[in-house]
Amino acid sequence: MVKCSFCDSKAILVRKYEGIALCQKHFLRSVEKKIRKTIRVNKLIKRGDVIALGLSGGKDSSLLCWFLSTIRKRYSINIVAITVDEGIGKYREKNIKCAKELAKKYGIEHHVFSFKEEVGLRLEEIMKNKAIIEQCMSACSVCSVLRRYILNKKARELGANKLAIAHNLDDESQSIFISYIRGDIPRALRLGPISPENDKSKFIRRIKPLLDIPEKETALFSMLKNFKLVSGECPNAKFSFRWKVRDIILGLEQTSPGTRYSIIKNFEKIRGVLIKAQKSKTKPLVCKMCGEPTSKEYCKYCQIIKLIGN
Amino acid sequence: MVKCSFCDSKAILVRKYEGIALCQKHFLRSVEKKIRKTIRVNKLIKRGDVIALGLSGGKDSSLLCWFLSTIRKRYSINIVAITVDEGIGKYREKNIKCAKELAKKYGIEHHVFSFKEEVGLRLEEIMKNKAIIEQCMSACSVCSVLRRYILNKKARELGANKLAIAHNLDDESQSIFISYIRGDIPRALRLGPISPENDKSKFIRRIKPLLDIPEKETALFSMLKNFKLVSGECPNAKFSFRWKVRDIILGLEQTSPGTRYSIIKNFEKIRGVLIKAQKSKTKPLVCKMCGEPTSKEYCKYCQIIKLIGN
Repeated sequence: MVKCSFCDSKAILVRKYEGIALCQKHFLRSVEKKIRKTIRVNKLIKRGDVIALGLSGGKDSSLLCWFLSTIRKRYSINIVAITVDEGIGKYREKNIKCAKELAKKYGIEHHVFSFKEEVGLRLEEIMKNKAIIEQCMSACSVCSVLRRYILNKKARELGANKLAIAHNLDDESQSIFISYIRGDIPRALRLGPISPENDKSKFIRRIKPLLDIPEKETALFSMLKNFKLVSGECPNAKFSFRWKVRDIILGLEQTSPGTRYSIIKNFEKIRGVLIKAQKSKTKPLVCKMCGEPTSKEYCKYCQIIKLIGN
Repeated sequence: MVKCSFCDSKAILVRKYEGIALCQKHFLRSVEKKIRKTIRVNKLIKRGDVIALGLSGGKDSSLLCWFLSTIRKRYSINIVAITVDEGIGKYREKNIKCAKELAKKYGIEHHVFSFKEEVGLRLEEIMKNKAIIEQCMSACSVCSVLRRYILNKKARELGANKLAIAHNLDDESQSIFISYIRGDIPRALRLGPISPENDKSKFIRRIKPLLDIPEKETALFSMLKNFKLVSGECPNAKFSFRWKVRDIILGLEQTSPGTRYSIIKNFEKIRGVLIKAQKSKTKPLVCKMCGEPTSKEYCKYCQIIKLIGN
């Protein structure tokens, strides 16, 4: 039996990257402490914030929903949950049911917006579109553009000044890795625990309170807290470039524990310099078609909309 | 038979990342053209430069030695080749013999400096040192610190104003990848086709004319040009972190041809911003122990020397 590093109980998790073992009580406590530290150190939340929460109904966003509800009074924050129904068969339907129940349980205002209503087509239908097939676009890249756009726009329309995203340590290190390879600097600047402040921009500041929690641990935490969850991944995920990157980073983590933390720490150094350099530049752009924020003439959302001819 | 994209001859290489096939003649011509472009676009060489060449005697540095000899007159440059004898069994001895013959063939001044003379121990002896074993240092990390130090110092002492390194596309994309994970910004700034200019620094500007040539192509080129080479890799290489990164990048290249170019292109954008930010900072440091340039109080070379007690 491996014992907890802080008491005599049986350990349920060994954290190689910290060289410690944790029992259930100390594991739960440690995760909460880490989330609080991420919020405090990066000043993610201020008193009176109106926080829109991207609530897919999966393990990460359910954990974040629960956590935000526990600090609601202390910070005097308002929370409004947003679920985007992309239209991915039964996988999404079940998730949305969980999201609804969770929001109700914690007394959080909840809105569902669908691709069908916003774009006119479900993701499944979009992926059958000839132009999309010709451009070899993956379901994940189409989905993430449309989802991010809807989340940002709806959060702003609902009066939020922050958008809380349940990205965990694995998600973030994957995003950084992808941006190193694909190299979209304006988008890379919006990574990190909190996106840069810009009063003139229509981008709601994105905050990531779960940034320091590995995916394995958000899963374990959610299981121990008995969040009602649908098992399984999105059926499209396994075909994405991100999935390949996921394997690479987990492989590096295995031989060099702490690699994920190292990736996000080093990126923060680079991001700091890039943001400073960016500030001296021109004012933020808005899409010529829809007026939403963008880093190019037309935003990626409108490029897809134009492509599918809706 | 796959035909060359530029004539009717049989192709000897398919460049997936460019979507073309090349016969022997067009392949050799294309590599030379790429090297010339790298030199021209990044202003690697100026008339009258004194260029020290790191000549290990392997395929990459042999190619670079030959190439520099072909442009010697046109650019009015002086070339002085430096070989570092680390002390790695027979592998190194054979390489040094090749290097000597090559320099002689092209009428290039040639110097050999050894770890044994400079440090007092061969690499094999250093790796048996208790302190080195306790610190879990790999042969590759010790070797690269000592080799880089000796190359820079000797190049300067020999009157060179540039140090030509035969890093190919694979080497460079690996170095960038490693610096993203390990995150040593001062060192990352010295990556790229040419390291930043700094009159006050004792760092000789490093240039990398082979930066745009994949390793597979430097090997093929060297074979076709009949350079006398020793087959096989350094026996230590396979145990390094770099070897793992090599596999990762080659894996990504296979599914997404052009990944290596994408990595170095995107890094250049980031590096440009970092260098600008760095310029406004303090003057370069010199090691308190040896007076050579460093980014910390003591240079890594002296840290190793101190560790092995020599």
